[in-house]
Amino acid sequence: MNDLSRFSLNQITLKQWGLRDAIEGCVRHGIGHIGVWRDKLAEQPMAETRRHLRDARLQVSSLCRGGFFSAPTSQERGAMIEDNRRAIEESAEIGSPLLVLVCGPARGQTLGDARLAVRDALAELAPYAGERGVKLGIEPLHPMYAAERSVIVTLGQANDLAEVLASTAVGVVVDVFHLWWDPAVEREIARAAERIAGFHVSDWLVPLPDMLLGRGVMGDGVIDLLGLRSAVDRAGYAGPIEVEIFNQALWDSDPDAALERICTAYRSFV
Amino acid sequence: MNDLSRFSLNQITLKQWGLRDAIEGCVRHGIGHIGVWRDKLAEQPMAETRRHLRDARLQVSSLCRGGFFSAPTSQERGAMIEDNRRAIEESAEIGSPLLVLVCGPARGQTLGDARLAVRDALAELAPYAGERGVKLGIEPLHPMYAAERSVIVTLGQANDLAEVLASTAVGVVVDVFHLWWDPAVEREIARAAERIAGFHVSDWLVPLPDMLLGRGVMGDGVIDLLGLRSAVDRAGYAGPIEVEIFNQALWDSDPDAALERICTAYRSFV
Repeated sequence: MNDLSRFSLNQITLKQWGLRDAIEGCVRHGIGHIGVWRDKLAEQPMAETRRHLRDARLQVSSLCRGGFFSAPTSQERGAMIEDNRRAIEESAEIGSPLLVLVCGPARGQTLGDARLAVRDALAELAPYAGERGVKLGIEPLHPMYAAERSVIVTLGQANDLAEVLASTAVGVVVDVFHLWWDPAVEREIARAAERIAGFHVSDWLVPLPDMLLGRGVMGDGVIDLLGLRSAVDRAGYAGPIEVEIFNQALWDSDPDAALERICTAYRSFV
Repeated sequence: MNDLSRFSLNQITLKQWGLRDAIEGCVRHGIGHIGVWRDKLAEQPMAETRRHLRDARLQVSSLCRGGFFSAPTSQERGAMIEDNRRAIEESAEIGSPLLVLVCGPARGQTLGDARLAVRDALAELAPYAGERGVKLGIEPLHPMYAAERSVIVTLGQANDLAEVLASTAVGVVVDVFHLWWDPAVEREIARAAERIAGFHVSDWLVPLPDMLLGRGVMGDGVIDLLGLRSAVDRAGYAGPIEVEIFNQALWDSDPDAALERICTAYRSFV
């Protein structure tokens, strides 16, 4: 049985809660970490959020999310860089060591060109992040999101990218939902080693109820969670483990009951 | 502009047609190749099908499909081997040089164990196929099908498997829908070289209307078809190009009008 000491509630899991509700929910359930979303963060003054987090003794494990670098025009790219700078600042202001990146789709460019645009944006942002003590976490998404969300689709590719960038401000985020199918996943987790900046858990339901909002609670699907957790442990990652479940049914349910269920699942299956 | 000399109609594209209708449809549209499905083949006596194919001067590019090797019990595995032997015989009887394989999901096994089961089944079947002049085509499926259809999900993995088996009766099938997202796809197509036993085209629509029955007609989506076609050409593949589109809207439409549209799209986009 796992304890909750490394459990982090990624806010999207219980999207029906505002940030203050989520903070209070974490306290009620004995949770010490939270993954914050920018739209939720924007709902109240930053100073208030900082006070709530401090009063709740809650550590922010990540801010979600930056990225979407692959805009086709230089004007849009410039705007995205600016927005990512703000996201880095917000991360620093709430004490988040990590900004999670969804790197963006091709948007009419070739995959190769879009991938170069991602690399260039990361190279531009890495020093800015490093100066503020924030790590940029490249999160490879499942290949079924390649057309609409991310041209970065495997951990091998994220590792390659991080190697080229060679910055301590660039890491990778391992999300089991996105990576479980990959025959190279264990090898690439080992290769990522100290580059691992975050670990996300959920499950792959069979059949998948929805491509976007059909993720399952841990143990309800087919992902070898203990195997991947063990690989991440062996690679040396000892930080928070974020539960990030995009699921409409969870959003429609009583959040405290859902969180209780999620904590129980985490203890047994992660 | 491409001509239709290498065009092959995979029967699933116009599933509303029985095999005889499909053969006659190919003749009407000047098509010289067809990819046959086993359930359609079973609808009439083999001798009759052979005569229809001969009269139509139609070459069979493939039989779909064998595989599903990863059954959890030895009894079920034995039954699957037997069924695949029959599929190899059917391929030989209709003059198909290729049996396309969907290798099967994990079905409660670990991904690693299921992948070993696939390897063992292929090793057992390869001599049987080789003696009958039939190639076993490992078709890596999109990772979104890993839980329900195939633990073989990348061309790199299919190439690794084919290398280990080291049999001239084992090849790989390159399907753009399954592989377009992979940063390694061009390198792995080059590596596959003379191992490429089939090339399937369709498109990835944005948004994808359905995980299973939402494939698009070539040119309607985001896949770099000309780039992948060029990579397959460079790798030396000169065989039929199968149009394999799983799409409910095509099945609900007039098949001759749909085939006309598909031929036009093929000329422009493949």
